[in-house]
Amino acid sequence: MQNFSLSPDGKEYNLPTPEDDQKELAIIKEITCQQRSSGRKIVAVQGMGFVGCVMAAVVADAVDPQGNPLYFVHGQQRPSLRSYWKVPVINSGHSPVNSSDPEIPGIFKRTVLEKKTFRATWLNQVYELADIVVVDIQLDATKPAFGDAAKGYCDLSAFRDGIRTLGERIRPDCLILVETTVPPGACEKVIKPIIEAEFEKRGIDTEKFPPLIAHSYERVMPGNNYVRSIRNFWRVYSGIDDRSKTMAREFLSNIIDVENYPLTEVDNTNASELAKVMENSYRAVNIALTLEWAKFAEQIGVNLHQIRKAIRKRQGTHDNMLRPSLGVGGYCLTKDPVLANWSMSAIFDLPGSLDMAISAVNINDTMPAHTLELVHQHFPRLNDIKVTVLGISYLEELGDTRHSPSETLIRLLNENWAIVKAHDPYVEYWPEMENVIIRPDLENAVKDAEVIIFAVGHNEYTNLDPDHLLRMCLYKPLIVDCSNFICNLKIKRYIELGCTVTGVGKGHINYLRTARH
Amino acid sequence: MQNFSLSPDGKEYNLPTPEDDQKELAIIKEITCQQRSSGRKIVAVQGMGFVGCVMAAVVADAVDPQGNPLYFVHGQQRPSLRSYWKVPVINSGHSPVNSSDPEIPGIFKRTVLEKKTFRATWLNQVYELADIVVVDIQLDATKPAFGDAAKGYCDLSAFRDGIRTLGERIRPDCLILVETTVPPGACEKVIKPIIEAEFEKRGIDTEKFPPLIAHSYERVMPGNNYVRSIRNFWRVYSGIDDRSKTMAREFLSNIIDVENYPLTEVDNTNASELAKVMENSYRAVNIALTLEWAKFAEQIGVNLHQIRKAIRKRQGTHDNMLRPSLGVGGYCLTKDPVLANWSMSAIFDLPGSLDMAISAVNINDTMPAHTLELVHQHFPRLNDIKVTVLGISYLEELGDTRHSPSETLIRLLNENWAIVKAHDPYVEYWPEMENVIIRPDLENAVKDAEVIIFAVGHNEYTNLDPDHLLRMCLYKPLIVDCSNFICNLKIKRYIELGCTVTGVGKGHINYLRTARH
Repeated sequence: MQNFSLSPDGKEYNLPTPEDDQKELAIIKEITCQQRSSGRKIVAVQGMGFVGCVMAAVVADAVDPQGNPLYFVHGQQRPSLRSYWKVPVINSGHSPVNSSDPEIPGIFKRTVLEKKTFRATWLNQVYELADIVVVDIQLDATKPAFGDAAKGYCDLSAFRDGIRTLGERIRPDCLILVETTVPPGACEKVIKPIIEAEFEKRGIDTEKFPPLIAHSYERVMPGNNYVRSIRNFWRVYSGIDDRSKTMAREFLSNIIDVENYPLTEVDNTNASELAKVMENSYRAVNIALTLEWAKFAEQIGVNLHQIRKAIRKRQGTHDNMLRPSLGVGGYCLTKDPVLANWSMSAIFDLPGSLDMAISAVNINDTMPAHTLELVHQHFPRLNDIKVTVLGISYLEELGDTRHSPSETLIRLLNENWAIVKAHDPYVEYWPEMENVIIRPDLENAVKDAEVIIFAVGHNEYTNLDPDHLLRMCLYKPLIVDCSNFICNLKIKRYIELGCTVTGVGKGHINYLRTARH
Repeated sequence: MQNFSLSPDGKEYNLPTPEDDQKELAIIKEITCQQRSSGRKIVAVQGMGFVGCVMAAVVADAVDPQGNPLYFVHGQQRPSLRSYWKVPVINSGHSPVNSSDPEIPGIFKRTVLEKKTFRATWLNQVYELADIVVVDIQLDATKPAFGDAAKGYCDLSAFRDGIRTLGERIRPDCLILVETTVPPGACEKVIKPIIEAEFEKRGIDTEKFPPLIAHSYERVMPGNNYVRSIRNFWRVYSGIDDRSKTMAREFLSNIIDVENYPLTEVDNTNASELAKVMENSYRAVNIALTLEWAKFAEQIGVNLHQIRKAIRKRQGTHDNMLRPSLGVGGYCLTKDPVLANWSMSAIFDLPGSLDMAISAVNINDTMPAHTLELVHQHFPRLNDIKVTVLGISYLEELGDTRHSPSETLIRLLNENWAIVKAHDPYVEYWPEMENVIIRPDLENAVKDAEVIIFAVGHNEYTNLDPDHLLRMCLYKPLIVDCSNFICNLKIKRYIELGCTVTGVGKGHINYLRTARH
């Protein structure tokens, strides 16, 4: 049986043995003792995922006005085959997440190796030592039926286990700050009862020591401003009682640039939890709206992207309008409406549902089918047609493939027996689609393509010169522009070079084709 | 038979006789001749409605760099019983629309009486004299079934008649600039064929003189910035050919502050028409989303207005989020998605529909039912319950009652046999609800109320002091806050004074009720 954890760069890390556990326990106890005696509070971050590890580094980087670190951070990661490698990687001063943010390497090196205020561990015993635990456990929504998000639910069992671990170990005066996006009601109706039950098992009088639980959600934006999106950005928070609110406020004020991004306190944790899922639902709904208008625009000779630009001039009321595209990816917009809708019945036992938000998820999840339709207009049968998909991440200039709409597109192309090649300058390995080979060089990816789909707006693609691309191609491929990545001048050139061009929301292309130059 | 037209201030204006027509024709011909000889272009504005009359004044107010008026404007209004009074009212230097904009009286006085560049007439013959016709005919959508906007359609017959009048009379080189919000496709597929047919009847060679048709939509905002919202605001335009586009650009550049609000030209008139209805659909969808979240928030102790404030801190991406309320009123958001959806099948013969936008209209149209639900939670039966509705216009600080959600609310209250009184400081007469008596003084309106519904956020209501209001009341009324018009401090005070308080999206009220002061 495999007893090592494999990091993305191919290194093997042996899982810890019982002897390692013994040694590690002595180390974390000694470090905690030292750090506490130098006046630092001890923070444990639960989960070294996408948010947790950077949040941990930001906390470890916080200093008082004299420049002295305020916190020592234990970053706790379970010693699983899939993720244990993060512990030694972090402790060598490196980031376990791949990011284009230039601040990322520096903040890990600085906090782990220089300030020595951040250390990763696999031991749950760190929770016994902490003044504050920040919960960053991953929590996903399950959508059992594609395009039927109303059936979506949230399996809380692993999350409950993680919280139970805290209840078994934390000191009664330790603040639990939940940062995970949770279904509304989680702090009051899921976390609080678990902690109280564990406290009672341990003989702690919960009248005298009511659990201290707060919620504050991150608004992490992957990309170049990853660290800034945690440290230099607005935060909403609340707590289940006044003391929890106060402790959360003090902690967040120390780590976040509250002078420029003042905190917003809301009445209760339900409100803070609801705010997070509502802000993402707002975006999901706005994206969903673009699809039906894109389909209309395509059929009446209208460039919807041009219209969007015109409408967005109405600053303050219309400038948040989103663009039609291949679809919606990432970790938030695809699941947060589901968390809220599920919470309504499962946590609060309420009738009704969040129909607008759920329709939006359904429309967004199935949106790549529209790009397939555009291909079908030119290739009614896709059997053995060679299709190259340019871009498989879910955002420009980013290698993040979580819930990428390119994944749905490629599945649909495969179902139609097309021969698919994928290319992405930021992705070497696609964990969700292990059997799709990603071509490292563009020439190889497009050489024999009959269809080229511009799926993601990476600069490498938006800067592509039509003549240059066509020189790499054996055929005159159908060019599919999923979200206005190709300007009108280039569209004209592709047409001059003998290609057919189509695109989401780009009904003006026929007009360009017939227009006098 | 009545042969006079009654103005809102109660004056009677005799409809013109054939002799009046003769005299008027001589006058408009002479004025046109004079004005043309002083170098001015002649503009006719078709329809002296809400937009047309102010647009006409703005055009008449435009000057060249030396301060000389550029245009003489004939404002044409049909001599109907309902609207003929506008002609003499305008020609006396007064505005036919009631507006809080301080610019309104000045611009009518200045253009009609001082500059003498604006004159209203009832004669269609003005179109024979015009270089440019601006079309501001009213065009509504019909929604035959309440809450089923998919069945909505647009009766174009009166609009077609208006356009036919132009085709019968305009010079072949006259530009028709359509400003009416039309179903997408109207310029190319409705207006152009009518004008061509009329030109051909008149023996005009449409190959040599293709009709000149452009579309540019206004973004009039009623209220204090009425005139500015025409003159100092972004405009989108297009034309059915290059010459129409150029003429529209030149005209709009002369009348609009294009230095600060540059024009946006789009590819074709379909695009310009679609932009208008899409920008309003975007708002309608965002409002619809708030309802389901408000219902959820109300049941889990959350103040959705507080959450909205927190979310809107994300400037540039989330600050356009709208608030939950009694519902949506006015002339645009309630009908524009219907125009677009209807156009898809009726004008373009396309399959599919704009489901998100249509659902939004249905949700918004029926939204007042939710306020009724809030009342029902406290008064399961409303028979003979005295309910006072504060505010019947569709916007704050405005007397405009068109498609006001208060209208729907009062209809629902009436259906439930409640005894309804209405109050609004800006409305004396409610044309859509003639049998509802509007109480002029607040005391009289609230005196015997068992329920007081804060429907509109007029300052008079948001500034109301609870002690002051309760002194006017015989009972301790149920206070219903439709959109966060009553702050938390005042809610507490109403509760202290013995009232029950509830409100749309205001689930925190029970929390306030039990909170220690």
